[in-house]
Order: sequence, then C-alpha cells, then structure tokens
Amino acid sequence: PRVLVIGTGLVGTSLGLALTAAGARVWLSDPDPAAVEVAVAMGAGQSADGWQGSPELVVVAVPPSVTSKVVADALRAYPVATVTDVASVKAPITAGLREAGADLARFVGGHPMAGREVHGPRAGRADLFDGRPWILTPDAAADPERVQFVAGMVAATGAVLRVLPPEVHDRAVALTSHTPQLVASLMAARLAGADDELVSVSGQGLRDVVRIAASDPGLWSDILTTNATAVVPVLLALQQDLSGVMAALTRAAAAATADQELTAVLARGNTGASRLPAKHGGAATDYVSVPVIVEDAPGALGRLFLAAGEAGINLEDVRIEHTVGRLT
Amino acid sequence: PRVLVIGTGLVGTSLGLALTAAGARVWLSDPDPAAVEVAVAMGAGQSADGWQGSPELVVVAVPPSVTSKVVADALRAYPVATVTDVASVKAPITAGLREAGADLARFVGGHPMAGREVHGPRAGRADLFDGRPWILTPDAAADPERVQFVAGMVAATGAVLRVLPPEVHDRAVALTSHTPQLVASLMAARLAGADDELVSVSGQGLRDVVRIAASDPGLWSDILTTNATAVVPVLLALQQDLSGVMAALTRAAAAATADQELTAVLARGNTGASRLPAKHGGAATDYVSVPVIVEDAPGALGRLFLAAGEAGINLEDVRIEHTVGRLT
Repeated sequence: PRVLVIGTGLVGTSLGLALTAAGARVWLSDPDPAAVEVAVAMGAGQSADGWQGSPELVVVAVPPSVTSKVVADALRAYPVATVTDVASVKAPITAGLREAGADLARFVGGHPMAGREVHGPRAGRADLFDGRPWILTPDAAADPERVQFVAGMVAATGAVLRVLPPEVHDRAVALTSHTPQLVASLMAARLAGADDELVSVSGQGLRDVVRIAASDPGLWSDILTTNATAVVPVLLALQQDLSGVMAALTRAAAAATADQELTAVLARGNTGASRLPAKHGGAATDYVSVPVIVEDAPGALGRLFLAAGEAGINLEDVRIEHTVGRLT
Repeated sequence: PRVLVIGTGLVGTSLGLALTAAGARVWLSDPDPAAVEVAVAMGAGQSADGWQGSPELVVVAVPPSVTSKVVADALRAYPVATVTDVASVKAPITAGLREAGADLARFVGGHPMAGREVHGPRAGRADLFDGRPWILTPDAAADPERVQFVAGMVAATGAVLRVLPPEVHDRAVALTSHTPQLVASLMAARLAGADDELVSVSGQGLRDVVRIAASDPGLWSDILTTNATAVVPVLLALQQDLSGVMAALTRAAAAATADQELTAVLARGNTGASRLPAKHGGAATDYVSVPVIVEDAPGALGRLFLAAGEAGINLEDVRIEHTVGRLT
C-alpha cells in the first residue's frame, strides 16, 4: 500500500522505517524540510514534496495539540484515504474533527505506546514498535473495514494491538502515564535548586522516581494540556492525599507518635504498586532478588549471566547500582 | 572488640553477620526472642540474654521513633561503651538524648544507606553494607576517639564513610529519600482503586516511579514522622508547584494553548534529574542506549552480555522490559 506519513519526528520516522521494511511504499512530509531529508536519508521513505499520487493510508504523527487540524486537512486533501494518528490523547481529537465536520468514517485514532528518551528523526528505529502496545480508539462512526486496514498496519510494525474507547484511553493514560510524568517532574524540580551537599546523598530509589523527568518539556506540556480534562481529576485526588499527609505529619510530629492517616496512604501505595501488570501482562508473581557484586569492566556481567543461564535460571529483571566513591 | 547489637531486624542482623565475618564478637538482643533466635541461627552472633560482660560498642538498630530512648538506656547501662545507632533521621535523636541528660561524649549517630525491599532478620545479609554510603553525624560533644572507633566499624562492614552535621543529613534525606518515598506512595495510591482496564495500560515509566511504594508502611510512617521538621518544607514547595501546575493546566486547556508555567516546571524537572550524581558519585556522562530484543529463556542475556564484553563494551545500566501480550 501507499502510505503518507505527516510529521517526521521520532515516531513518524520510525513508522516510515518499519512500514518500508514491511514492504509498503512510504512518502514523508514535515513543515521542516531538514527533518524530511534526515528521514529519507535513514531509509524511512521518499519525500512527498511534489508528489501527485494519492495515498491509501495517511498517518499523522504531529504533537497532540495540532493533530486534529492536520487530520482534518488530510481527510479533505485525500478524499478516499484512511487517516490515522499517533497522538497520546484521543477524545479531544475526535471531538475537534466532529466540530470541523470531518469525514469520521475514514478516521481511525491510534496511539503507539513506544518512545525513547531522545527525539527527532535521527532517533528513529525500525523496531521502535516491536512488542509494544498500540491502542486504536475508533469512533462509532468509523468504517469497520478501515479499522481493519489500520490494524493491519499496526501488525506490520510488530506492535501488539489493543482497542479502547477514546475516553477510556484518555483516562488510562492520564492515570498511568501523564500523572506519573508530572509527579516525576515535580519531584525532580525539588532537586533543581538544592545544595550539592544534599543532592549528593541520592540513591537508587530517587533515581527511579525521577528517571522520566528527563523528558521533553515542550512535548509533555502539549500532551498534558490536551488531556487536561482527564489529568486534572487525578491530580486533584493526589493533591487531597498530599494535604492529608502533610496535616498528618504535622499532627504526628507534635504528638511524637505515628499517624494512622499517614500509614494508610503508604499502605494504599503498597496496594497500588502491586496492581501493576507483571511480565507479558500476566498476574504479578514473587521472584527472588539476588544482589551480586561484579567488577566494572567489559564482560563481567556477561560471565555472571552466562553462569546463571547454565544453572537454568531465567532472569526476570536486572538493576545495576554503581557503588559510590569506588573506582570499580 | 565486643559488640552488642540491640534490634535484630534486617539492619541489626546484617550488621551482626558483617562484624562477625570481620572478626568481632557479637551479642544480639531484641524485644522479640524469636527474632534473636533467627539472627543467632543465621550466624549473626550469640544471644545477649543473660550475658554479664560489658560491650565496647553498642549498636542500636531499632525504629527511629524509639532510637533516642534505647540509646539513652544503653549509655546508662554500659557506662564505658561507645554507642551508635542506624536510624535514618539524626537531629531529633541527639536532641532527645540532650533532653534526657545522656552522656553525648560516648554517642556517635550513624545512618547506613542500605536496605532491601524485604525486612526482618531472615532478610539479613553480611554484604548488605558493602559499597554503600554510611553517614556518621557526630555531635560537637562526641569524643573524637570514639568517632574514629565507630568509623572503624563502618570500614569493617565494607561501607563507604561520610560525615555530615545531623541537620544537614536530615535535610538531605528529606529531599532525596523521604519525599521521593511519599511521592511514589501518593502516585501508587491513585492506582489502588482504579479500574483494571485503566491500570492495564501501565508501562515502564510508571513502574519506575512507584517501585519504592512497595516499602513497609509502618517503618516509613515512623521515619517520616520523626523527620517531619525537614520533610514538611519540601512537601510544601512541591504542593505549591502542584497547585501552580493544576492552575496552568486548567488555564491552558481553556485557551487551547501550551502554558509557560507548566513548561517551566517540566524544564525544572529536567534540570533536577540531571543533577543526580552519576556512577561512583562522579559527574553525569552521556551514554548510548541500545535496545535489544532477546528470548525469554535462561542464558539469553548471558550470551548477549558476553558478546558485548568480547566487543570491549562496558555496560553501565540494564533495564529489562517484558513485552506485553507475548509468550516470549
């Protein structure tokens, strides 16, 4: 099939690479000609500049806040094409299209849950979507055959298809992606102006909590704003818990005794953490954690893991903590 | 030297194991005789029950809220011994001792920054402190020779010694350990009552943010309450940022445009995250991330890492993400 990818950032370029590898013919466009040039040089497809043909599929891979407009334009410009998008917020986009009187029968909203901590076309990878969830959120007005067509594209990238109503999708990512992003950023922001002496005590726990705080502020500001309707209620509940914890802490410190409300929030945290889906989406299992000290040199982990493999041990997770103040 | 360890939980038992291995003679006591029995059976030392000797060193390894009282009792019971503790909050303990008129010349406060996600004597390990920071927070009244004596014990466990004033220690752990713990718990608590359909969309980002939310609520309630003076100001600043973000989100959603205040908080998060000390406590470096898909079977990672080692590549960090909805 002939595919037009609009937006050659990380996701658009990766999709071009994946679909080209799967045998599709891909055309690429972007407001920034340099970005198209990079994507073309990487093998993601050919430039759509001056192309007179008509795509069967248009994939809109632009920031959430402008997705609705670009999709509406594409539906008008290519009156027989199926159009999909990759924005991480879904309901406001369909709402915007309905308002613009767009042909919703030909639109199938999508969200590939894949990303990297880097962005731009140079970060593109043909295997970015391999094994990752790709959620489609077709509106009731969408033509079922076109939904199947987009599902075929998802399968071609190696992604794992899921279908959710747009509003459910938006509440799900507000809870599991957008709020965690904000929480990590709020925690990391506390470190920004702190004395070196205080920050130097940091350990692995803090490192994990703030890892995603390194994400692109511009893109995330756009995502959070577009999904504000779903994010704000989660933040409101979190804010109430926080106020409760602060009151409990002050109360408990004055009384020099532990506080039930404080313990209750921490215990709810236990419950919540245990609800995360385990490996391959199955139920959570208990594993044995084995700390091992190895030399900081090429091959050290390889020998360790090979020995584990020879003993028939399957490694479920690995975490490396570098010892502080040592050379090896 | 003769060492008495009071409290045979995870830290007390691990310390008994480490000091026994280093050649010390260790006696163990705990309000729970079963805990002492387990620690003795593990080789952490002998029971102090009925012991008439006098220790040169007493290590108090009990929860922060009762540490001050147990240390004061130990200073009275063993009038020539040096006494140290392992509580993760320091200034309130010295303050409590001063109030009780304890002999502060013989007390050297300490905090080994080592832990596991499990607790109790059975979780004890001789190498728990190996390569970990162990902060000593001697009061001005502490006898310098006794500080040296406790520093020797720290060295014997393999830990890396740091010395900080108690108030600086408490502000440092409030920022880098206690607030992150609460933030992770508050985020995880949002998952506790959520629909399965929403939680099922969770990815690695959320998993990292809430990992430490699995910690013991009773112990953490105790730690947070004891360090409330240092924790509350950090929470207050975070609460102000959160309110600002919520106002900005509502504003931006109404105006359908990104908000500078929101972007600014996310950018401050970038700055904060980049301030974490890198490997071995040095400055942060840029590394190359290489995603590789391997079979979920014993030996798969071993072969991969051995190949990396043969190519002279030193692995700095490893993260395993299990693909959802696949068997391998």
